[in-house]
Amino acid sequence: MTERMFDTTCIGNAIVDVISKADDAFLAAEGLTKSAMMLIDMDRAEELYAKMEPGIEMSGGSAGNTAAGIASLGGRCAYVGKVRDDQLGDIFTHDIRASGVTFETPALTHGAATARCLILVTPDAHRTMNTYLGACVELGPEDIDPEIIRASKVTYMEGYLWDPENGKQAFRKAAEIAHAAGQRVSLTLSDSFCVDRYRDEFKEFIRHGVDILFANEDELKSLYQTTDFDAALAAVRDHVEIACLTRSEKGAVIVNGADAHIIPADRDIKVVDTTGAGDLFAAGFLYGFTNGHDLASSGHIGAMAAAEVISHYGARPAVDLKELMQQKLALSLS
Amino acid sequence: MTERMFDTTCIGNAIVDVISKADDAFLAAEGLTKSAMMLIDMDRAEELYAKMEPGIEMSGGSAGNTAAGIASLGGRCAYVGKVRDDQLGDIFTHDIRASGVTFETPALTHGAATARCLILVTPDAHRTMNTYLGACVELGPEDIDPEIIRASKVTYMEGYLWDPENGKQAFRKAAEIAHAAGQRVSLTLSDSFCVDRYRDEFKEFIRHGVDILFANEDELKSLYQTTDFDAALAAVRDHVEIACLTRSEKGAVIVNGADAHIIPADRDIKVVDTTGAGDLFAAGFLYGFTNGHDLASSGHIGAMAAAEVISHYGARPAVDLKELMQQKLALSLS
Repeated sequence: MTERMFDTTCIGNAIVDVISKADDAFLAAEGLTKSAMMLIDMDRAEELYAKMEPGIEMSGGSAGNTAAGIASLGGRCAYVGKVRDDQLGDIFTHDIRASGVTFETPALTHGAATARCLILVTPDAHRTMNTYLGACVELGPEDIDPEIIRASKVTYMEGYLWDPENGKQAFRKAAEIAHAAGQRVSLTLSDSFCVDRYRDEFKEFIRHGVDILFANEDELKSLYQTTDFDAALAAVRDHVEIACLTRSEKGAVIVNGADAHIIPADRDIKVVDTTGAGDLFAAGFLYGFTNGHDLASSGHIGAMAAAEVISHYGARPAVDLKELMQQKLALSLS
Repeated sequence: MTERMFDTTCIGNAIVDVISKADDAFLAAEGLTKSAMMLIDMDRAEELYAKMEPGIEMSGGSAGNTAAGIASLGGRCAYVGKVRDDQLGDIFTHDIRASGVTFETPALTHGAATARCLILVTPDAHRTMNTYLGACVELGPEDIDPEIIRASKVTYMEGYLWDPENGKQAFRKAAEIAHAAGQRVSLTLSDSFCVDRYRDEFKEFIRHGVDILFANEDELKSLYQTTDFDAALAAVRDHVEIACLTRSEKGAVIVNGADAHIIPADRDIKVVDTTGAGDLFAAGFLYGFTNGHDLASSGHIGAMAAAEVISHYGARPAVDLKELMQQKLALSLS
């Protein structure tokens, strides 16, 4: 065990996605906010599911998607998250292990079912998410294996994990272990409504516990309660060592003190489903960062991985990202 | 209840598909016959699944796919099949009902889990299927609602249902009820190995109980134990009133006594996954046949539905087939 080394350990809510098509009228009738993630209970999950179109099921969960992306790029990755020992839990466990990710968190043997996220994809390719957390609320500090955290160059955590109280404690424990071992801690803000719920706690945690922050434009503006991206950018420079700010079709900005790297988005794709865009940007960046690439190159790998995942339904890569990266590299050198 | 009318009732094994990519070397290492369906037990299902790539899950089952296709075309369809009251059973039940299909077979409340089919899709788009029948073996004559069968212009059954003994009895009961009510009975041969298992019983049943037969080239040759398609064609003419013979990229032939209608395949598509091709051909044909179209037109609708389903992963339509049919019709008239 102690000999294992990881580029990144990802910690998050272990979720199976249920993906269906919907139109804007359906979102309106159900009172859903487009592109947001809403937490729902089991009764609401059953009510909403009954109204949804036929779906496809795929493993998801923000940090799980990131872990699968890192592994697909050839990175060494571990994942920490909580499923129940049910059919959806078996699917989640199979898929993340089959991706090449180390996943050893014990499954719940009683209580709530494996989490699911009911994802509605509108014709404009935006996804609106409704999450029943289920077994995820039982992830706690006891699930953090200090050996794995110490052996990881980066420990990456999703802001969504702040929702279950035990998750927050697991989160803090992992960050302390990582820093005590001289490793890095990374956080994604996950969702602007999630930032609304925990703004002050997030700000405090970022200042003292985070080395690499991931946020999209809405999340960043929400964090600093501003409508001005440049103002938010100025604020984050002083707040965290490295900030990776994703801006959809405008690409991304990597901020590191006085330096800023502009990463263009890949415009040459047909966007089908934006689920997982941020997760896969993080995957590409973290793969690059932990494998000796500079910040700009790491950002380009992130943009490539994000472009792949939004070109199809589902939040995990549909192709071998390592091969894709090598093809792109060959193309850029030719 | 008695006022309901259906174009078609489909009876089959209720299965959730688990779809992964694989290469030919994997098939060889696992001793799998490409393009065939193999029955496996739970231990083998777990062993094989553990070796498979990350998957996507979608409702499947041959007759279930046909039912979903008929409903997508705007047809009135009922489905009979057996799931367990577990998470995969909930997914199957949700999806077929959300497709617009009437599905009232009670779920098992104990015993075997909902059936799953581990589908390996090779780069040549062929699918190789490994089915754990689970709860399907409990489908029996008591699950056949005479009211629904009498109210259906066609009762359509998959040959795979011959595998579980109770299913065969359900099958025979449904055929008798349909014929007593002056309705039609249709059978698909499902798989050449399935034909091998039940050749004599199938031949007998076709002669006395089937009005419309669906078969692909391999299945037809297996039925008549010949390597010559024309010989098989001559045999089937005398055997059944209407035979719909699918020949992959060579299209289909609809045989009705002395008449034969040649239906070209849609060559203008990129084939991604052939799963469901036969099921959706049957859906299109049966929709047409039960809605006043002649045999050739019904065959063209079948070819259109089959072309749609092989252009993406999964065995159920990804678009509204009624809209697609109307677009094709408008195009052919312009």
